[in-house]
Amino acid sequence: KSVKKGFDFTLMVAGESGLGKSTLVNSLFLTDLYKDRKLLNAEERITQTVEITKHTVDIEEKGVKLKLTIVDTPGFGDAVNNTECWKSVADYIDQQFEQYFRDESGLNRKNIQDNRVHCCLYFISPFGHGLRPLDVEFMKALHEKVNIVPILAKADTLTPSEVKKKKIKIREEIEQYGIKIYQFPDCDSDEDEDFKQQDTELKESIPFAVIGSNTVVEAKGKRVRGRLYPWGIVEVENSAHCDFVKLRNMLVRTHMQDLKDVTRETHYENYRAHCIQSMTRMVVKERNRNKLTRESGTDFPIPVVPGVADSETEKLIKEKDEEVRHPMIHLFMFKFPPSSLQIDFILPNKETVSPQLFFFVCV
Amino acid sequence: KSVKKGFDFTLMVAGESGLGKSTLVNSLFLTDLYKDRKLLNAEERITQTVEITKHTVDIEEKGVKLKLTIVDTPGFGDAVNNTECWKSVADYIDQQFEQYFRDESGLNRKNIQDNRVHCCLYFISPFGHGLRPLDVEFMKALHEKVNIVPILAKADTLTPSEVKKKKIKIREEIEQYGIKIYQFPDCDSDEDEDFKQQDTELKESIPFAVIGSNTVVEAKGKRVRGRLYPWGIVEVENSAHCDFVKLRNMLVRTHMQDLKDVTRETHYENYRAHCIQSMTRMVVKERNRNKLTRESGTDFPIPVVPGVADSETEKLIKEKDEEVRHPMIHLFMFKFPPSSLQIDFILPNKETVSPQLFFFVCV
Repeated sequence: KSVKKGFDFTLMVAGESGLGKSTLVNSLFLTDLYKDRKLLNAEERITQTVEITKHTVDIEEKGVKLKLTIVDTPGFGDAVNNTECWKSVADYIDQQFEQYFRDESGLNRKNIQDNRVHCCLYFISPFGHGLRPLDVEFMKALHEKVNIVPILAKADTLTPSEVKKKKIKIREEIEQYGIKIYQFPDCDSDEDEDFKQQDTELKESIPFAVIGSNTVVEAKGKRVRGRLYPWGIVEVENSAHCDFVKLRNMLVRTHMQDLKDVTRETHYENYRAHCIQSMTRMVVKERNRNKLTRESGTDFPIPVVPGVADSETEKLIKEKDEEVRHPMIHLFMFKFPPSSLQIDFILPNKETVSPQLFFFVCV
Repeated sequence: KSVKKGFDFTLMVAGESGLGKSTLVNSLFLTDLYKDRKLLNAEERITQTVEITKHTVDIEEKGVKLKLTIVDTPGFGDAVNNTECWKSVADYIDQQFEQYFRDESGLNRKNIQDNRVHCCLYFISPFGHGLRPLDVEFMKALHEKVNIVPILAKADTLTPSEVKKKKIKIREEIEQYGIKIYQFPDCDSDEDEDFKQQDTELKESIPFAVIGSNTVVEAKGKRVRGRLYPWGIVEVENSAHCDFVKLRNMLVRTHMQDLKDVTRETHYENYRAHCIQSMTRMVVKERNRNKLTRESGTDFPIPVVPGVADSETEKLIKEKDEEVRHPMIHLFMFKFPPSSLQIDFILPNKETVSPQLFFFVCV
């Protein structure tokens, strides 16, 4: 059924400016872009990235349709001060989750447009002595929201022994800093030896050392995508030159479904749980404040005194966590996720009340 | 005479971390380091740069001795916030000028150890889309203190056409941002055509695209310094591969004397003029303050009221600028450059007075 209907996949690219993010994306799906000429526009448009942009490409391989969405993020590191450069990317991912959360709670759930980001290719500079503090900060800000696949960018600037050393260093640092990158699922024990071997190789390729190119050059009589240097031709799809083919196979063939499953079952569920919890807290606080306001007999809401009220708030939150299971409240909350809180109801005494609170008051 | 005595030259390297600054320095002077085995230690020590370090190498070529000092600066760009990363480098250059200024004013002027920086190789990333804001800030902070020679680092990551485009872009941006890099002197009109051609080529090479390597590899039967990739061998000294030889010739042969002349005649003289002027201002202000203190009849110095005193200060400064020409004051000031101002004289009424002021009072 899925095969007939086709697949959806959303891929994000992130990392320092100038590491060839846009070029790699074009390289990864060029064979398909070539088939359908009109799609070349996407390539032209992906030139300079100053804000988050989205491109959609329809790919068909052996009769299987794939609707691929590429989310290109602005490269950072160009500025003198790069504090919080990961913020807009993290916000983007959250917004997609929020939209899905809304749609999932709506009436027509059959044709939800799923824009959740299934994978983020994070580009690491080949010049860094391992990870840079910015890389660590960025990945830690995103690793609980999205499947991060680290990429060693522009690997044609490193000799094979340098690539090997750098990969080990980066893997060690990812471990050391507690960064949770995407984990390839374990191989079934009943798989054949060839498959197991391939799986081990894939796991040892992290971070994938890649080279991008959209130029076709002539190498030993055959035309290949590559880079023409005075000292030789770098072939993008030659596995002796880089991990490009490995990365493409992993993304498009072997691990696409797992990347989607982890997004749905782990990252999205985390977001949803967090969202429900913070909504409950908000409702309880507002109810609490409203109660205090009424007791003090004034028309203006008084901020809750911390310390005094907080222990009571915590108690109420626990009660609420139970209440949330009530299907009516559940439904209501889904219709009003946190971002819609600005729509306040005005009561006859001119107090404003949020929809959630209004609902509670009515109940 | 100079040939017999030998030459001194101080070269600084600066720029983003990971661009191969230390490797290039080793590559530039490796032929000479090889001749004298014990000097290899310098190479070993230049590994990680966390602070400004100085290495001295004695080079002899065709009977001409050269004492080369390499100033290695910490690579920046690793931090998330790189504001004012140029400060320690600018301070270092100033300190060498100050030391020379002191020594030049001393009694034994024959054997002054000249540590002034004659040239700064500034490394630009091949991945930037032209200059980065940090590059602009750094070069502008240094361009009036030292001869800046821009370097396009790790050029084996760029194809010849990319190198060409990037060079033009960087030259345009240097012009656009008003960065004053080292200007090669104009060629004499009576030079032969070959020389003129070479000179034009040199000027068009800016920024020098370089590749560094300290590994000897076998290429087409001959042993060369280079980098061994699966797709070919990059030869450091092959002018079809990069501008390494051009840069070395410029530094060691053709332009060394001019770099020293510009340092002495322009950068050092600028520093000296600036220094004398600020010393004069300081003395005048102190004298002025002292005058006010006496008038007010108190033992404590009172800060000069701005606006009221400043016009008088300016007038006095003009008088002082004349006075400075007095050989005695001149000599005295040279003995007490600004950094020695902390040695204050204590007068009988317990007021402290700087040596310059003490001198004026005595005169």
